[in-house]
Amino acid sequence: MTENKKLWGGRFTQEASKLLEEFNASIGFDKNLYKFDIKGSIAHAKMLAKQGILSNYEKDQICKGLEQISSEIDSGSFEFKISDEDIHMAIESRLSEIIGKDIGGKLHTARSRNDQVAVDFRQYVMSANLEISTLIKELMKTLTNIAKDHLNTLMPGFTHLQHAQPVSLAYHLMAYSFMFMRDYERFISSFERNNFSPLGSAALAGTPHNIDREFTALELGFKAPTFNAMDSVSDRDFALEILFNISVLFMHTSRISEELVLWSSSEFGFVTMSDKFSTGSSIMPQKKNPDVAELIRGKTGRVYGNLVGLLTVMKSLPLAYNKDTQEDKEGVFDSVNSAKNSLVILNEMLKTTKFNSSNMLKACQKGHLTATDLADYLVSKKGTPFRKAHHIVGECVAKAEEMGLDLSQMSLDELSKIDKNIDNTKVLSLENSKETRNSYGGTANSSVLKQIEILEEFLG
Amino acid sequence: MTENKKLWGGRFTQEASKLLEEFNASIGFDKNLYKFDIKGSIAHAKMLAKQGILSNYEKDQICKGLEQISSEIDSGSFEFKISDEDIHMAIESRLSEIIGKDIGGKLHTARSRNDQVAVDFRQYVMSANLEISTLIKELMKTLTNIAKDHLNTLMPGFTHLQHAQPVSLAYHLMAYSFMFMRDYERFISSFERNNFSPLGSAALAGTPHNIDREFTALELGFKAPTFNAMDSVSDRDFALEILFNISVLFMHTSRISEELVLWSSSEFGFVTMSDKFSTGSSIMPQKKNPDVAELIRGKTGRVYGNLVGLLTVMKSLPLAYNKDTQEDKEGVFDSVNSAKNSLVILNEMLKTTKFNSSNMLKACQKGHLTATDLADYLVSKKGTPFRKAHHIVGECVAKAEEMGLDLSQMSLDELSKIDKNIDNTKVLSLENSKETRNSYGGTANSSVLKQIEILEEFLG
Amino acid sequence: MTENKKLWGGRFTQEASKLLEEFNASIGFDKNLYKFDIKGSIAHAKMLAKQGILSNYEKDQICKGLEQISSEIDSGSFEFKISDEDIHMAIESRLSEIIGKDIGGKLHTARSRNDQVAVDFRQYVMSANLEISTLIKELMKTLTNIAKDHLNTLMPGFTHLQHAQPVSLAYHLMAYSFMFMRDYERFISSFERNNFSPLGSAALAGTPHNIDREFTALELGFKAPTFNAMDSVSDRDFALEILFNISVLFMHTSRISEELVLWSSSEFGFVTMSDKFSTGSSIMPQKKNPDVAELIRGKTGRVYGNLVGLLTVMKSLPLAYNKDTQEDKEGVFDSVNSAKNSLVILNEMLKTTKFNSSNMLKACQKGHLTATDLADYLVSKKGTPFRKAHHIVGECVAKAEEMGLDLSQMSLDELSKIDKNIDNTKVLSLENSKETRNSYGGTANSSVLKQIEILEEFLG
Amino acid sequence: MTENKKLWGGRFTQEASKLLEEFNASIGFDKNLYKFDIKGSIAHAKMLAKQGILSNYEKDQICKGLEQISSEIDSGSFEFKISDEDIHMAIESRLSEIIGKDIGGKLHTARSRNDQVAVDFRQYVMSANLEISTLIKELMKTLTNIAKDHLNTLMPGFTHLQHAQPVSLAYHLMAYSFMFMRDYERFISSFERNNFSPLGSAALAGTPHNIDREFTALELGFKAPTFNAMDSVSDRDFALEILFNISVLFMHTSRISEELVLWSSSEFGFVTMSDKFSTGSSIMPQKKNPDVAELIRGKTGRVYGNLVGLLTVMKSLPLAYNKDTQEDKEGVFDSVNSAKNSLVILNEMLKTTKFNSSNMLKACQKGHLTATDLADYLVSKKGTPFRKAHHIVGECVAKAEEMGLDLSQMSLDELSKIDKNIDNTKVLSLENSKETRNSYGGTANSSVLKQIEILEEFLG
Repeated sequence: MTENKKLWGGRFTQEASKLLEEFNASIGFDKNLYKFDIKGSIAHAKMLAKQGILSNYEKDQICKGLEQISSEIDSGSFEFKISDEDIHMAIESRLSEIIGKDIGGKLHTARSRNDQVAVDFRQYVMSANLEISTLIKELMKTLTNIAKDHLNTLMPGFTHLQHAQPVSLAYHLMAYSFMFMRDYERFISSFERNNFSPLGSAALAGTPHNIDREFTALELGFKAPTFNAMDSVSDRDFALEILFNISVLFMHTSRISEELVLWSSSEFGFVTMSDKFSTGSSIMPQKKNPDVAELIRGKTGRVYGNLVGLLTVMKSLPLAYNKDTQEDKEGVFDSVNSAKNSLVILNEMLKTTKFNSSNMLKACQKGHLTATDLADYLVSKKGTPFRKAHHIVGECVAKAEEMGLDLSQMSLDELSKIDKNIDNTKVLSLENSKETRNSYGGTANSSVLKQIEILEEFLG
Repeated sequence: MTENKKLWGGRFTQEASKLLEEFNASIGFDKNLYKFDIKGSIAHAKMLAKQGILSNYEKDQICKGLEQISSEIDSGSFEFKISDEDIHMAIESRLSEIIGKDIGGKLHTARSRNDQVAVDFRQYVMSANLEISTLIKELMKTLTNIAKDHLNTLMPGFTHLQHAQPVSLAYHLMAYSFMFMRDYERFISSFERNNFSPLGSAALAGTPHNIDREFTALELGFKAPTFNAMDSVSDRDFALEILFNISVLFMHTSRISEELVLWSSSEFGFVTMSDKFSTGSSIMPQKKNPDVAELIRGKTGRVYGNLVGLLTVMKSLPLAYNKDTQEDKEGVFDSVNSAKNSLVILNEMLKTTKFNSSNMLKACQKGHLTATDLADYLVSKKGTPFRKAHHIVGECVAKAEEMGLDLSQMSLDELSKIDKNIDNTKVLSLENSKETRNSYGGTANSSVLKQIEILEEFLG
Repeated sequence: MTENKKLWGGRFTQEASKLLEEFNASIGFDKNLYKFDIKGSIAHAKMLAKQGILSNYEKDQICKGLEQISSEIDSGSFEFKISDEDIHMAIESRLSEIIGKDIGGKLHTARSRNDQVAVDFRQYVMSANLEISTLIKELMKTLTNIAKDHLNTLMPGFTHLQHAQPVSLAYHLMAYSFMFMRDYERFISSFERNNFSPLGSAALAGTPHNIDREFTALELGFKAPTFNAMDSVSDRDFALEILFNISVLFMHTSRISEELVLWSSSEFGFVTMSDKFSTGSSIMPQKKNPDVAELIRGKTGRVYGNLVGLLTVMKSLPLAYNKDTQEDKEGVFDSVNSAKNSLVILNEMLKTTKFNSSNMLKACQKGHLTATDLADYLVSKKGTPFRKAHHIVGECVAKAEEMGLDLSQMSLDELSKIDKNIDNTKVLSLENSKETRNSYGGTANSSVLKQIEILEEFLG
Repeated sequence: MTENKKLWGGRFTQEASKLLEEFNASIGFDKNLYKFDIKGSIAHAKMLAKQGILSNYEKDQICKGLEQISSEIDSGSFEFKISDEDIHMAIESRLSEIIGKDIGGKLHTARSRNDQVAVDFRQYVMSANLEISTLIKELMKTLTNIAKDHLNTLMPGFTHLQHAQPVSLAYHLMAYSFMFMRDYERFISSFERNNFSPLGSAALAGTPHNIDREFTALELGFKAPTFNAMDSVSDRDFALEILFNISVLFMHTSRISEELVLWSSSEFGFVTMSDKFSTGSSIMPQKKNPDVAELIRGKTGRVYGNLVGLLTVMKSLPLAYNKDTQEDKEGVFDSVNSAKNSLVILNEMLKTTKFNSSNMLKACQKGHLTATDLADYLVSKKGTPFRKAHHIVGECVAKAEEMGLDLSQMSLDELSKIDKNIDNTKVLSLENSKETRNSYGGTANSSVLKQIEILEEFLG
């Protein structure tokens, strides 16, 4: 189909160095770290001045230069060149252009590119942990707010996608609130565990210069410096953790997305999504594709893949830094962006989704959802032995089937013919079934209100 | 090659039900949970008695029966039948055999198999978190003890598997101690986050019985009951977390294993493994295969795979329980066992490994490891501009190469001919290079002793 | 929770060697290879005799001994000991017990354990390729047979789980037949590409003995010997291929399983599964859990995980054999068994599933599935510009909605009021819509019959 | 660290639609498909004209317009807008700008975006299969050429990274040639199996228009049209296959890269990489980092991840098209680019790598590599029983160790003192050991020359 051999062959001999340069360069993606690189350099310069390694004048020049570069990148006027190899070099060479090589060159005293890479990426990941956890809280808030409106919206609780017992929509949504609470906790826990500064590790063995790692750590918002420099330049645990936490987050969002897709089908009809979050067809007015839910569900693949990718890269690497590790960033950037975008959109989509309570109620009238309640009643209130109760309920269900009704729609008259102990139909009502399941964590309103209270206290 | 069609075909029509039974049954692997199932049932029975749902006599009978079953399984006299489907049924039907159906049947009041599965597996995973973290501490202790003996054992610090700067073996091993410290923290953090009891969730919606979930939670060593029953019966976050934490643990053990394999090669010769942890060849006396290190490295595949497996299973499952979730256990059991066995063996292997300091020292004499130190000296002590210092060192290295020596072996005489400012050779010594890198987290003994102190305080 | 430290600690010092033995041993799982190991040894012995390295008497003794061992293992009387380490040693030491060490010891001439491992596992995988492909054909046959019965069963074709256009159930099922056809082709292609014998590779470099590798290759049903012994003892491509092919197979079975779960829900009601392949509840007669479909879907996780596991193991291994490779078998055995069991059960489940055509037809009457057909008609038959046609159909749909009807249920009368060009309602009929899509590969019966013909020719 | 909540919150309410547009749009990555989209449209237009659905004038206008767009994109003058959503819309709306809506609008007759997506991506993947397989052949050629120069370069054959038996470098490199041969075969086999055209599938059910799918298939270089349209729009097997084949390819390249990293270490010294493919340090002249080999090894993570990603996406998707599938492309593009770039660079790197035969030879003199040869000699030529031979060789090795020599360096004099049957030292020579392993696939030159012959015939 193509004549690659010639294409590459010809190109290669002429432009070998260019191809190699491209293969090695990370500037294409690590430019995303510029803000953190500049923050790191400013902290480093301040520390060098404090320790008497730079003069205050030099420090000021450096900081001013770096801030100018920051503005240049912000405004898009900064030119990234593949020959700069990475963001650290790009910024450093521009700094020397601005303030001259004599002072510019001094910024690199007592540090190496290895710890610059480490401190930039660590800042990025710590920041992403906080951003994502904030967005998760927003989502939890939305779910809980919707739940509050639907304490009395009955729907079938499913197991095996089969109708099992009646629950409230509030209760169903609160299940998700608590999943996302665990997600929140994981991001925060990872932040706490990893919020240490590798800056000052130098190449792998520390430095003979009289530096103050605690100063730079605090300056950059870290808790403290890391403990062992060789570990620090090759540690990517913090990156693996965010990739895993995002994977579990997407496992959860894939579940709610799956339900939204199911529920917006013609067969379920439990929800109607806002036009804003669907794609439609001008010809078929009912056709409303739940694209956003599908895409969120689909993005689970990409974030799982990024996790597997970095686990694979890190396996069996001897200490300390190896170039393989350069492969750590793109996957993390991609997963973080997927997480942030998906959380925002899922949140907005939920806010604008219409829950069709009448369809949900209608669904409750299929499957004899309260059969268990009747058996329980005969056992606990009438002293019927369980085996016998079971048999009686079987007969009632058969009768209902015969009459084309759901058990919850049967009259007392018909039922008491089967067993005189059946002396009221309250026990068959969906509402009653829901309200009696008031154990801690159950679907009764009293239990769900408790859950909402716990959640709102957590959200603060 | 085989005539599968007939084989299966014939077998199937005759034994359809048996094949299906096998396909559905989980007894083959969930029998590992028997201790937790029995503990859970005892706690449940006590609670039912406390709440007046069982009489004390009934409770005592049940508990006695369960303890008998526990002994039967311990001693191997219990017969597991595929027709029992799962461990919960196997124990329950045996209980009824022992104490009769009337009382035995009452144990299942106010609970369902769904929450039994959930509480058994949760107990198993919580327990595994603690077991593994204990073993990690043992490993950290061993590494730190070896480090203490090797503060003055010089070895080349590597980047890109190339000699970079001299470090101590102590420092190199402490890098691993800190990796394993993070592993420890992850297991403990996961334990804290997930140590909640799902017992009492019932099928998915809670129960109308007047149960006390806090009582059973505390009885089983959990912090508290879970918040929402629908979430609780479908939550497998705790299982994913242990699979991930084991994956990162193995990423770390694969790194130290890789180094042990490299170091025990004829080319490196840095370590000699104990015969107990190697396989040899009677003909070739030098041949000592580092099988254990290779197997630990290889088991990384299996634990990564188990993580991917469960992430895949859970993706897009609608609430609440689905049979897919039955696929959660085998991978977790396998990863937990791999972790426990590998930690024990790695620990013993390290204790019996001989570190060949003379070979490590010899290796330090290749690669002019102290060239950077000389340049630094000229810049900071003699005021030589960096460019010029760089040039001078280049000449020194060229001279050393010419003489077949390493820079650290050069005489002052030869060097001062190149630049008079070179007024001592201390700066070229490996020892000096190591000792001057005394920044926080560096390789100097003072820094490493600080690291050991931090670690030992952590270990308690 | 447990005091692992003491447990392991105590156990370890006393039983160090036992633990290590267990860690290293593969007998626990590679005993599955016994038939292939014995076949390999018999072929090797015959070749040695042919080449004059063994006498005919020796060869006969060896073969008789090996056949006896085969019977012993078949009948369960063979005792596997962990101290035998692996199946090769187990068989070899038993052989020497039976026929004496003098002759028994000669079987290992001109081969090593490395190529024994390689040839046994290769035979297993080749055989599994054929077994699985046979089962896939059975499944294709079943799907195609069902399709033949449902050429006129109308159902909504879905995109985004929304009703899109009417199709026949036959057509929908044939989509799966063609997926499984590709699966079949992949297994067969992998078989063809890898059906080479590694026997005679020896440790890694070949052997000085005058062996005939072609003879043993053909004797064992291989096409030819492999080309390079160092490659042969470390090649696991054939194992990765079967793991991948099983993964894609399960991707497909997970899709049909997902549909069966959806379709057996109360909301869809498209299928009723046989009681034999469901689990029910004695109280709720409608409750029929599609456990088998869920389990097949869930097993996708395990087979994906096994693929990731072996890819991880093999990454970055230097040549030739490394102990890591021992981790190749369990995952393959597990995936192969999962595939075989799932294919048999899925096949039987499909055969006994009832397709509810009336529910499917009812579903077609939602979503104005033939709106596109009307627009197409106006454009191609009446020369109406597309924009205008589109507008007209929009009005028709609005009218239908207003009347609570589906477009396909509207009378000509009502429609021609909107546009006189609408001169028949045939174009609105579901049947017509289906039958006009008669392009190659389309849903019209003529097209589907062609698909069935292609498939049946393929099946032979 | 950041105030994301406000940031997103504010931004969202104001720019909701923009965010959503970005979330849904695929133009950012599917623009890579433009050449294939245009080819597909031209083939479609030609077919429509042939079938009388378009006039020749209309077809010519469309083709001219499409070719203009192709030039515009080639030259960079084409403006991609996020509002165009995807490449298909972008091209179609530009076409209407150029040739007017009346004719431009007719191109979409009898096709849908679903099959456009399918045919574009299929073309891309088929083409990538061919490109990659061509590059693999180049690599095989290079390895084989190097092998031809090193038939007599002795090196230790390794197992467990321990010296095992002497082999030639030629033989070692040929092991890789045969790995890559299997890779080549996999890409070609996947091409053959999947080279079918989905064009004409329409949305999911075929089309009522009288199209000729065979015509467009052949026009685009496919073998034939696909069989079932519903399968065709949701089939991504071909994409999974290329992701898997690239994963195995990288498994292989990670192995040779690992060896290049090891071999370029100071400890091994087996190779010296060209400066062009290393990064160095101006101070440490020996320091030459094998960055390219490390990066290729590291990229294994990314390609494994992409495979896992798409397997995850496709799991459990009901038929036919779902938006999740949009997540199929980025991973494939990334893996294909990684494969093409890495193959080119690995090839060039190998061509310029210097193999240090004297270091390899020196390494052979460690480990008594020929001990097995001596034992074999005594057994087969002198009739010494194996046990005794084994004992004698043990003594010889002990003597060699005592004298600080390798067995291959011992004099006949010393050895015959131990056993008179040792009557020559030829059997101890490395060269002899290598040359006697002349079984098919062995390391003897005669065997390796046969391997080279097979390979070169394959390469054609």
